[in-house]
Amino acid sequence: MTAGPEENRPTPLLVRALRREPVERKPVWFMRQAGRSLPEYRKVRQGVPMLEMCRTPDLCAEVTLQPVRRHGVDAAILFSDIVTPIEAIGIGVEIQSGVGPVVAEPFRSRADLDRLRSFEPEADLPEVAEAISIITGELGETPLIGFAGAPFTLASYLVEGRPSKSQERARAMQLEEPALFRDLLERLADISIASLRSQVEAGVQAVQVFDSWAGSLSEATYREAVLPVSRRLFTEIESLGVPRIHFAVNAGHLMEAMAEAGPDAMGVDWRTPLSQARRRLGEGFALQGNLDPTVPLAGPEVLERETRALLADAPELGHVFNLGHGVLPSTDPAMLTELVGLVHQITEKAN
Amino acid sequence: MTAGPEENRPTPLLVRALRREPVERKPVWFMRQAGRSLPEYRKVRQGVPMLEMCRTPDLCAEVTLQPVRRHGVDAAILFSDIVTPIEAIGIGVEIQSGVGPVVAEPFRSRADLDRLRSFEPEADLPEVAEAISIITGELGETPLIGFAGAPFTLASYLVEGRPSKSQERARAMQLEEPALFRDLLERLADISIASLRSQVEAGVQAVQVFDSWAGSLSEATYREAVLPVSRRLFTEIESLGVPRIHFAVNAGHLMEAMAEAGPDAMGVDWRTPLSQARRRLGEGFALQGNLDPTVPLAGPEVLERETRALLADAPELGHVFNLGHGVLPSTDPAMLTELVGLVHQITEKAN
Repeated sequence: MTAGPEENRPTPLLVRALRREPVERKPVWFMRQAGRSLPEYRKVRQGVPMLEMCRTPDLCAEVTLQPVRRHGVDAAILFSDIVTPIEAIGIGVEIQSGVGPVVAEPFRSRADLDRLRSFEPEADLPEVAEAISIITGELGETPLIGFAGAPFTLASYLVEGRPSKSQERARAMQLEEPALFRDLLERLADISIASLRSQVEAGVQAVQVFDSWAGSLSEATYREAVLPVSRRLFTEIESLGVPRIHFAVNAGHLMEAMAEAGPDAMGVDWRTPLSQARRRLGEGFALQGNLDPTVPLAGPEVLERETRALLADAPELGHVFNLGHGVLPSTDPAMLTELVGLVHQITEKAN
Repeated sequence: MTAGPEENRPTPLLVRALRREPVERKPVWFMRQAGRSLPEYRKVRQGVPMLEMCRTPDLCAEVTLQPVRRHGVDAAILFSDIVTPIEAIGIGVEIQSGVGPVVAEPFRSRADLDRLRSFEPEADLPEVAEAISIITGELGETPLIGFAGAPFTLASYLVEGRPSKSQERARAMQLEEPALFRDLLERLADISIASLRSQVEAGVQAVQVFDSWAGSLSEATYREAVLPVSRRLFTEIESLGVPRIHFAVNAGHLMEAMAEAGPDAMGVDWRTPLSQARRRLGEGFALQGNLDPTVPLAGPEVLERETRALLADAPELGHVFNLGHGVLPSTDPAMLTELVGLVHQITEKAN
């Protein structure tokens, strides 16, 4: 766990905003800020498979730091993938370019559960803590965000075998064999909990839990099949003492239910106005988001207009500026740098 | 236009349900009922490109009729694709297996508008009216549903060049060049209006307008950029005198706005409970849907349980039973046949 010295460090802007404390200006970071939109990233990635990048501390640190250097964002996010811990316990997963994670032997029956042994980060994936140590050493006062997959999304990858449009096999398994599906989610929750604990112990100062595919579920199914497990995950990581963000794309219909899992902040998709999110969720959560990721593709005038409109609609307290989904690979990085400056300038408090 | 003799035919169950008139049992049909789930379809399709099928009246009629023969559904839906009229006016479009429509030269600027000349169904695509004539001759009292793409979805295909996850180029064009984007939508609306008019004149008894990709828009953007054009489309086809269904997947947040376009019925995605749709839309619309398409993958017990639950939640008047999205290719057709019987049996009025 983090020791005494940290107590003398100022609490980062991001962490204060996630705790809904007053801030001198709004913090900004971008989902997928480390990635294909940056030429310096593409250069490092050349010829290196995704999961090898995640397991090579120097490379992982380098690409994690690139967007902080270039854009001046208020947080770094660990370069990784939600399937990294699963691969580390021996499930054959490959991240195929242009496709996403592909599982060699998809999960189909109870016997497959035995393949999901518990995850011991120190033994199975020590490279992540090493990378975090390098990154936090370089970052100074800028915080590093860690992350993990939520149980349903990890289960979807394992059952489908690859990214799919509507997670039909996973959802059919939930309908047909709810007990098996629940056991699968519980085991995956344990893996994500172990991963997040280890990331926080190594130095990350906030965590985000991605339930990327939850939007394919109806609210009733989410509440019945997923919420109890996600709630356990959030409860078990509460004692780590860092703010916990919960995010799914295309899941506006699940916002209240996902908030009931118990995070400190909700990431909001660009399709839900922040004022609506605030109204629906109440004052108890910070909000993160949610500029449409296509806005930075549309030129500086649109960027400024839409950013001002978003900030006018956003809560004053408890707001972290972000896109409503990941940075699109075709984004001109100069537009993101401009966006960071714009948010800082507009939200800076006159002192 | 249809002439005298039809007036002596009984009004089909589907049409009465779409008009919210009392029915002796609920009508059932399935989006993508003609398609890959049927072995007899796969046999006919072998080696025949999709758009060639659509332009060959005998083949089009055959695959349109197959699910009516097999399942006893209460409506046929014309086998076609929303890009068929666009291809017929000379835009290079190919439907690639496993991908979807791919446009040879995507739309990028105002100059591209000139490539979208007006669509003259009788001259450009007479095969569709021929197919409709064959189909309605075979169907007897079972109605045939026609369809067209909504302007935004057609525009997305043209601008993106292929199916895309979040229509980023199309949405960026809307942000950056709203006047151009609007002109593109208006022109595409004219094409869909011409197509629907011709289909009704040839004998279809209801139409469905698919705005498949609208769900990537926020409600504010939908209302500003899309709704006025979709509203014009629905207004102009009103005089055709057949019920008009409006459908989008993953667009629960747009339900009220899409209903304002003025259809008679709203297709509902499986993620929005029918009772919620009824509450949000009021009594003025019939509802179509919305069994989760994964339910037929999960065995007969789940099928019966979920079907009963759905019917208990559905409005008594003005409900057409359907899936909440298209039939999944991996569906066992026997399950769909069973589902039709189940809905008929449960909803049959004792006389």
